[in-house]
Amino acid sequence: MFASRALLSKQTLNVLARQPACFVHQGDYGNWGNTNIAVVFSGCGWWDGTDVHEAVYTMYHLSRNGARFQMFAPNQQQMNVIDHMKKQPASGENRNIMVEAARFSHGQGMMQMHDLSKLDASTFDAVIFPGGHGITKNLSTFVKEGKDCKLHSDVDRVLKEFHRNRKPIGLSSMAPMLACRALPGIEVTMGYERDETSRWGSWPHTSMVQAVKNMGARHTLHHEAYVDEKNKVISTPSFMWETEYHYHYIFDGIGNMVKHVLRMSTQ
Amino acid sequence: MFASRALLSKQTLNVLARQPACFVHQGDYGNWGNTNIAVVFSGCGWWDGTDVHEAVYTMYHLSRNGARFQMFAPNQQQMNVIDHMKKQPASGENRNIMVEAARFSHGQGMMQMHDLSKLDASTFDAVIFPGGHGITKNLSTFVKEGKDCKLHSDVDRVLKEFHRNRKPIGLSSMAPMLACRALPGIEVTMGYERDETSRWGSWPHTSMVQAVKNMGARHTLHHEAYVDEKNKVISTPSFMWETEYHYHYIFDGIGNMVKHVLRMSTQ
Repeated sequence: MFASRALLSKQTLNVLARQPACFVHQGDYGNWGNTNIAVVFSGCGWWDGTDVHEAVYTMYHLSRNGARFQMFAPNQQQMNVIDHMKKQPASGENRNIMVEAARFSHGQGMMQMHDLSKLDASTFDAVIFPGGHGITKNLSTFVKEGKDCKLHSDVDRVLKEFHRNRKPIGLSSMAPMLACRALPGIEVTMGYERDETSRWGSWPHTSMVQAVKNMGARHTLHHEAYVDEKNKVISTPSFMWETEYHYHYIFDGIGNMVKHVLRMSTQ
Repeated sequence: MFASRALLSKQTLNVLARQPACFVHQGDYGNWGNTNIAVVFSGCGWWDGTDVHEAVYTMYHLSRNGARFQMFAPNQQQMNVIDHMKKQPASGENRNIMVEAARFSHGQGMMQMHDLSKLDASTFDAVIFPGGHGITKNLSTFVKEGKDCKLHSDVDRVLKEFHRNRKPIGLSSMAPMLACRALPGIEVTMGYERDETSRWGSWPHTSMVQAVKNMGARHTLHHEAYVDEKNKVISTPSFMWETEYHYHYIFDGIGNMVKHVLRMSTQ
């Protein structure tokens, strides 16, 4: 101990002393420091934006794997604001998608929110869309028009640019619907194809599976992350599954999706 | 394989077939299914409520460890609403703490938000307060009155009830301040005592450390989770540390805090 200490200068020791001891763990889960991932948000909250759990899990797994990322959302009004206690629209409320999505940021470096119109696929290695009802309300017109919905013009552009340039697209819960609309013929999972309520939970959003099939997508029943290797599209059901006690498995599914996105971003 | 299958009835096989394969992992991190934890929120967002990352990390670690929990927040207006892009108050905005905190819920079972006034310590084994500026704005008057602040009456009551009944109190980032105000003489960590900006990040909120010392608390410099065994108070600095690339260590700190809370809840 004393011998090895003697090999270090006083200045080096001072620097080391100021680093949290836990830093030695860096790289445990991989080192993708040269990988730059765009993450696209649709607000803040399951019922009218990006689900808080799916978004935080995505950012955690990117951080744990040592990948860099940048955050984007459309700079315009949400379709509506849902009172998450009553699960009904709040009267007289009007919120901006990007400003609400900034609640996931911490205001410095990669932890800042940017206008989605500025997202240029050529400066990123992959893109990830966490889920939530904002997918169907703010990034598309799905909630009103179903399989015939229109995508937000920047969402359509971004998905097509990444796909054309053979860069991976990661999607959780409802987000695969966006890719199915922009890129007919891809294969995704959104979990179960009909509700299989059990003590583990239920699958109440299976009508979306029929919708993406009607858009021309192939659908695979899967619990964690499903990879369409040909199209570099990775999807995970996440909160398509409603569960009371086991939603840490949603964390695992997003972790697997993120790992496949990073793996394929270098291929 | 065929032999063991033959031992299972068709009905059992059908049930197993419907469970995601990942369920076999349950219990990897412990099984605290009889432990019931109250989690107290102060809104939704770092600058005016509960930090989204700290809250989601807390709920994830409780779920991973198999603990049950219930979510609570005060049913009243926030002190203000901060535009998280501009980091300035949004004019004309008015939001309810409990309704915004419900953005962390998923609407069923333990994933529902409840009125903090209904939180009865006798029905829980421990309480956890995730951090964020809502601690200083909505659960206390700290942002205006510093060390002489008043606590929200239910927060003061809850902290004293859990402490008096020898039940653990878990706290992250700014939340230790609440316990230091309600329970003079406890020992906590809020990270570094002066800003030590380096390439790893910075500690911009160290004035709060001086404030809790002036309240009569003892403060210990710690990076992950610090345990005051005598008072059963567990604290972790979390986003007192501002970091761009390494905030998965904040996840680890909250994980350790949760594990100590669960361990001490049975002692």
